[in-house]
Amino acid sequence: MQIAIIGSGNVAWHLALALEKNGISIRYLYGRNAEQVGKLAEILPHTKVSKNTDFSQEDLDFILIAVSDNAIDDVVAQIKRKPQTIMLHTSGSVSIDVFAGNNYGVFYPLQTFSKKRAIDFSVLPVCVEADSENTLLRIKNLATKMTKVVYEVNSQDRRILHLSAVFASNFTNHLLALSRDLLQPIELPFSILQPLLLETIEKAFAAEHPKQVQTGPAIRRDTQTIEKHLQILENKEFIQKIYQLLSESIQRS
Amino acid sequence: MQIAIIGSGNVAWHLALALEKNGISIRYLYGRNAEQVGKLAEILPHTKVSKNTDFSQEDLDFILIAVSDNAIDDVVAQIKRKPQTIMLHTSGSVSIDVFAGNNYGVFYPLQTFSKKRAIDFSVLPVCVEADSENTLLRIKNLATKMTKVVYEVNSQDRRILHLSAVFASNFTNHLLALSRDLLQPIELPFSILQPLLLETIEKAFAAEHPKQVQTGPAIRRDTQTIEKHLQILENKEFIQKIYQLLSESIQRS
Repeated sequence: MQIAIIGSGNVAWHLALALEKNGISIRYLYGRNAEQVGKLAEILPHTKVSKNTDFSQEDLDFILIAVSDNAIDDVVAQIKRKPQTIMLHTSGSVSIDVFAGNNYGVFYPLQTFSKKRAIDFSVLPVCVEADSENTLLRIKNLATKMTKVVYEVNSQDRRILHLSAVFASNFTNHLLALSRDLLQPIELPFSILQPLLLETIEKAFAAEHPKQVQTGPAIRRDTQTIEKHLQILENKEFIQKIYQLLSESIQRS
Repeated sequence: MQIAIIGSGNVAWHLALALEKNGISIRYLYGRNAEQVGKLAEILPHTKVSKNTDFSQEDLDFILIAVSDNAIDDVVAQIKRKPQTIMLHTSGSVSIDVFAGNNYGVFYPLQTFSKKRAIDFSVLPVCVEADSENTLLRIKNLATKMTKVVYEVNSQDRRILHLSAVFASNFTNHLLALSRDLLQPIELPFSILQPLLLETIEKAFAAEHPKQVQTGPAIRRDTQTIEKHLQILENKEFIQKIYQLLSESIQRS
């Protein structure tokens, strides 16, 4: 299989490593950030850094576009390829309609990537979409080389999935940031909350629905405790607002 | 060691089992819910169900009050004990001042308990507080029989810790509930988000501060994606409000 990757960010990094690990070499790597591209190319034994996105003379199976959402359409417009080469982007929120012509699709891995952290790709859900049945088969073939968990998801549903992931992951991380800030003045290590968090997540996914395992003062309508909490947040108006809104939302569900 | 437990809810349940597991028998169990008390007493081989909270004739080391926050002061007022018996409550938000006299304290396990789920008590943080140095030693001695992680936390700090845990655990669970509701119409299983969530939590605790690993459209100030998300939530005004407030909060941090 012959693959080129456009991009050198976290997604490009992890996809390249996961592909290499499963015996699929990256033929070319292209990106605007020369330093990042160089670093990634260094650890990929079979990869050449490409000076441009003209692959019209190459027999590539896939061109994987792993760049920021806003840059995808520019990159797509620049790419030159043979007709049978499949172009793929990796975004949760960009429609498949960013492509034109034939042989294109989406390869969206549902994970939060950082260069420093290893990811177990074998259980990582990848959502795929394609312009045709034939392309879909070829993309699924690529995906199953890396993971056991492949879902066919169209652009509209992928957008909803992405929104759902923003609530579950991005917003949760922010709650943890707020939580850590609250601990700051009382000199307790943030790690004190880790067993609680791991159990919270496991319990939510083990339940039929997370709302069935909701605990805390809001669901108990324990107004005394809620009042005490709002008092602590008296000088942190914005965080107080978040506390009130989420408590009200819990009570509405 | 001679212990009585007041209450038959989730905390009483798990504390009783953890104590038994570590060779400490529960002498008496008392609670208003006869059915729950009966069920718990059944699985505790050395426990007698008490008909009241008069332990003035018993040589008890501890009376553990594991009832709902609002009921603690009533229970405390009813209890009769020998002077050397230590009274303890297990609440995150109730002050130690709910007690009077001597030999009392707090034993607050920082976890979310459900009867159906086993908890590894050996790594569970327990926050302790006492009316005197001597009582503190005796409470710490009890705590270290169950867990390696014991913190001394006063009532004021414990209240802040509890608030911090509400953000980290209760509100996170609610975000997962909202996230699951969003997935409902597109027929993807909620489990698709589990690898993402586990990585989110591990990453947040591995970082120096969760805000250093914040990802998503808000922190990238990706207004295009944010606009698309708000459109999806057009008919869900309340959830849209949560999305906006949390996005703004991420951008302020």
